Amino acid sequence: MLETFENLFPQRDYLIEIVCPEFTSVCPKTGQPDFGTLTFRYVPDKLCVELKSLKLYLQQFRNQGIFYENITNRILDDMVALLSPRSMTLTASFTPRGGISTTVTVEYKK
Amino acid sequence: MLETFENLFPQRDYLIEIVCPEFTSVCPKTGQPDFGTLTFRYVPDKLCVELKSLKLYLQQFRNQGIFYENITNRILDDMVALLSPRSMTLTASFTPRGGISTTVTVEYKK
Amino acid sequence: MLETFENLFPQRDYLIEIVCPEFTSVCPKTGQPDFGTLTFRYVPDKLCVELKSLKLYLQQFRNQGIFYENITNRILDDMVALLSPRSMTLTASFTPRGGISTTVTVEYKK
Amino acid sequence: MLETFENLFPQRDYLIEIVCPEFTSVCPKTGQPDFGTLTFRYVPDKLCVELKSLKLYLQQFRNQGIFYENITNRILDDMVALLSPRSMTLTASFTPRGGISTTVTVEYKK
Amino acid sequence: MLETFENLFPQRDYLIEIVCPEFTSVCPKTGQPDFGTLTFRYVPDKLCVELKSLKLYLQQFRNQGIFYENITNRILDDMVALLSPRSMTLTASFTPRGGISTTVTVEYKK
Amino acid sequence: MLETFENLFPQRDYLIEIVCPEFTSVCPKTGQPDFGTLTFRYVPDKLCVELKSLKLYLQQFRNQGIFYENITNRILDDMVALLSPRSMTLTASFTPRGGISTTVTVEYKK
Amino acid sequence: MLETFENLFPQRDYLIEIVCPEFTSVCPKTGQPDFGTLTFRYVPDKLCVELKSLKLYLQQFRNQGIFYENITNRILDDMVALLSPRSMTLTASFTPRGGISTTVTVEYKK
Amino acid sequence: MLETFENLFPQRDYLIEIVCPEFTSVCPKTGQPDFGTLTFRYVPDKLCVELKSLKLYLQQFRNQGIFYENITNRILDDMVALLSPRSMTLTASFTPRGGISTTVTVEYKK
Amino acid sequence: MLETFENLFPQRDYLIEIVCPEFTSVCPKTGQPDFGTLTFRYVPDKLCVELKSLKLYLQQFRNQGIFYENITNRILDDMVALLSPRSMTLTASFTPRGGISTTVTVEYKK
Amino acid sequence: MLETFENLFPQRDYLIEIVCPEFTSVCPKTGQPDFGTLTFRYVPDKLCVELKSLKLYLQQFRNQGIFYENITNRILDDMVALLSPRSMTLTASFTPRGGISTTVTVEYKK
Repeated sequence: MLETFENLFPQRDYLIEIVCPEFTSVCPKTGQPDFGTLTFRYVPDKLCVELKSLKLYLQQFRNQGIFYENITNRILDDMVALLSPRSMTLTASFTPRGGISTTVTVEYKK
Repeated sequence: MLETFENLFPQRDYLIEIVCPEFTSVCPKTGQPDFGTLTFRYVPDKLCVELKSLKLYLQQFRNQGIFYENITNRILDDMVALLSPRSMTLTASFTPRGGISTTVTVEYKK
Repeated sequence: MLETFENLFPQRDYLIEIVCPEFTSVCPKTGQPDFGTLTFRYVPDKLCVELKSLKLYLQQFRNQGIFYENITNRILDDMVALLSPRSMTLTASFTPRGGISTTVTVEYKK
Repeated sequence: MLETFENLFPQRDYLIEIVCPEFTSVCPKTGQPDFGTLTFRYVPDKLCVELKSLKLYLQQFRNQGIFYENITNRILDDMVALLSPRSMTLTASFTPRGGISTTVTVEYKK
Repeated sequence: MLETFENLFPQRDYLIEIVCPEFTSVCPKTGQPDFGTLTFRYVPDKLCVELKSLKLYLQQFRNQGIFYENITNRILDDMVALLSPRSMTLTASFTPRGGISTTVTVEYKK
Repeated sequence: MLETFENLFPQRDYLIEIVCPEFTSVCPKTGQPDFGTLTFRYVPDKLCVELKSLKLYLQQFRNQGIFYENITNRILDDMVALLSPRSMTLTASFTPRGGISTTVTVEYKK
Repeated sequence: MLETFENLFPQRDYLIEIVCPEFTSVCPKTGQPDFGTLTFRYVPDKLCVELKSLKLYLQQFRNQGIFYENITNRILDDMVALLSPRSMTLTASFTPRGGISTTVTVEYKK
Repeated sequence: MLETFENLFPQRDYLIEIVCPEFTSVCPKTGQPDFGTLTFRYVPDKLCVELKSLKLYLQQFRNQGIFYENITNRILDDMVALLSPRSMTLTASFTPRGGISTTVTVEYKK
Repeated sequence: MLETFENLFPQRDYLIEIVCPEFTSVCPKTGQPDFGTLTFRYVPDKLCVELKSLKLYLQQFRNQGIFYENITNRILDDMVALLSPRSMTLTASFTPRGGISTTVTVEYKK
Repeated sequence: MLETFENLFPQRDYLIEIVCPEFTSVCPKTGQPDFGTLTFRYVPDKLCVELKSLKLYLQQFRNQGIFYENITNRILDDMVALLSPRSMTLTASFTPRGGISTTVTVEYKK
């Protein structure tokens, strides 16, 4: 579902930051919806992610039961498998549940 | 009472931050309730803490008489014994009592 | 449990505001703790509430299962029965549960 | 699905404010998810809404295609039919779509 | 180009606020682009404006030469002709040109 | 102890505001020190309060056990007896004790 | 020098606000430059002021010696003579000179 | 010392605000310097105050021992005698002395 | 279209920062307009960019379909080809589309 | 035109910061006035700049046509030639023209 387009400027290291404040999934323990903000920062190699396909890809989690830690790692893995970026960081900050807020940060370097 | 789930991404060092602003216990000197915010930052190894069980675990202190310093160290010890994380920091900030505010920071490294 | 002291200045209408940000009780549906801030504003008649006894009175709710709306009304009723104030307002703001925050405001006039 | 509990203090007009910042539904034109914050302010008569059932009721819109204006009016109608409150206001503020943000405010008086 | 949908709740006066911070047109004197924020506030009668069509309608001004005052009045007139609302206000705030900022506010009442 | 000087402009109603953020006294229940800010607003008649004597007068409360409500009313009474002002308001805001903050507001009109 | 264009919507009272933060003139006493912000608010009748000509008109004061009070009144008079507006207010706020800041506000009603 | 210039626009009521944040005088009790901000707001009749002369007039208080209340009233009286304005307000806010801040507000109407 | 003028101070490394908050282009996937802020920071060598020509050059993108990443890199390349600067950074921050915001940062060093 | 006075403390490196928010000159392309803020930070050697002469020197640019980059460098050069400071930085921030803001920063080190 994720689509790419060719990085036309591969001779240059440059930074792409993408902020997605409308991420939602479902808690695998309680079946209740979770809400969070995902922030990607990556240096592309041969490919860039197309943003509309990223939006649709993230919407796939809308009704899926999954832990915060697994969301963050799996999305990073999917993005890395898709793009083979030179580097990528993903920070996912979730709203409070039972008075507790969680932020997960994962990082990939070639 | 604390439960874990398997870290599915142990090949990667990544950071989990958990903020609990609704911690309460009882002062062992005066019998009066104390209130504080606990902030955990850890890099998991084989296990992650399940958040609902963490919430219930922290609620056990609700009617327990215990000093700030002991709260912070004992919770870190329980979490370390449970998770064997690669590293963990716990910061506990308590609201004023007699016009005095206290913050305790403890750290564990493998 | 609530104690009073004599209002030495009954010939004058004046305003007493008391803010209690460390209120906690238990949700009667889920058994989970709730947290909120109570704000009293009253004009005393013959009596004022003694603050340490107010603190102890509010601590009685610590392990009691009770809805927000009932907390707010019952505390107002207790205070009115105790003090027969010329007027009293109580606002209770509770922290989010399941992503939902609630504030209840009740008012008494002689 | 919405549940109520008896208003134990019907002799008194008082205000209940409920803020729900995690509302989500689906745009009936584009099939894309929408996100918004609902704020209820009501004076109960014989009944109060139970908050966990309100959370579950609002989650029913998660995968439903509906215009902002219809969401806001329909939810107000459902709440009024359920509670027969003395008065109720509902404000729904939605995040930008195509660079455009919308807020709908509806009001009911007995 | 502007589309409507039926107001399903005409028995009730309610307020719709729409904020469009990405309006752009062209100055008829200099041929240079102008930028502004349009804010609509209206009470619908039988019809509501469909937001995607509003977005496309506003984009028609993208390459059109027109004074601020005429933009604001003409858009209000188009919206009033389309919707016959019970009332409508439109405020248009434009970014500085030659060190001068302009805001135009127009209002319609049935 | 409080001193005055003649109001040289009695033909005119004018407002004097005096803010004293360093007030301290002792709680008559616990023997613990209390801290607060006193704000006077008055329209003088024949006399104005001399500020250095006000400072010394307020310092008399430093080791005195007295309730917040009595502090505020007694100081207002002393100032009114001294100055016979055309009107005077005194607001006293005290820092949290046992997690509870209190503000008392008293007013005098000729 | 000031130019106008026809108000195409004279059947409607509407508000035009124009903010000019880059006004500069010269002090007639000291020969030193003055700097200020002019804010116009007017309801047009048959004519609107063209903004580029307003900019050039205001630049005429750049090297002119004139008191703040006269600047503000004279510009209002020129605008009123030009536009015959239904109403107009002009506020001129000048930056400190010798540690003293001045704001002049003048108003015209038909 | 205070100078005036003719109000060229006496047919119109308009407002002049002058802010002087660098006022300083001497305390008549302690001999220590006082610092404050004076804010004038007046509607001129036949005369306006020239600002440089106002600056020099205010500097006369630099080494003069005088109470806050007297400063404010005397300066208002001098300005009223000079200008015969249609109305004038003067607010003087002084910095803390011995932990106490004072603001005096006086008003004149024809 | 881009014009330059001679850097009269080439013996010195100095920084020129240019902020363009009114950039707009068209999304090549959806045909919808995009909006963003471009920030240039460069150290000139023999040439500086003339700002009016930069404004006109950026306006060429107004109706052009192009990805964010390509906008940012292409503009940097055009500026580098034009100016041969000693270094240049370009940051482009775009407003949300489908709830997702993007910032691209590219850098050139001689 | 620029005047100096002797630095009486040359044995010490110390920092002088001078902020001039009322700089104005004329654009050499359009003939329109420009406005900006100049900030000097320098460590004096044998001489300091006299501030009134700096004000008069900067006023010379009031009606002069000159690019931002040349303004900033030329003023730095004049100041360096005058003072031979141990170091000096000059930052010039200009208000938007055509929606574009520019800041130039130049630096001198002995």
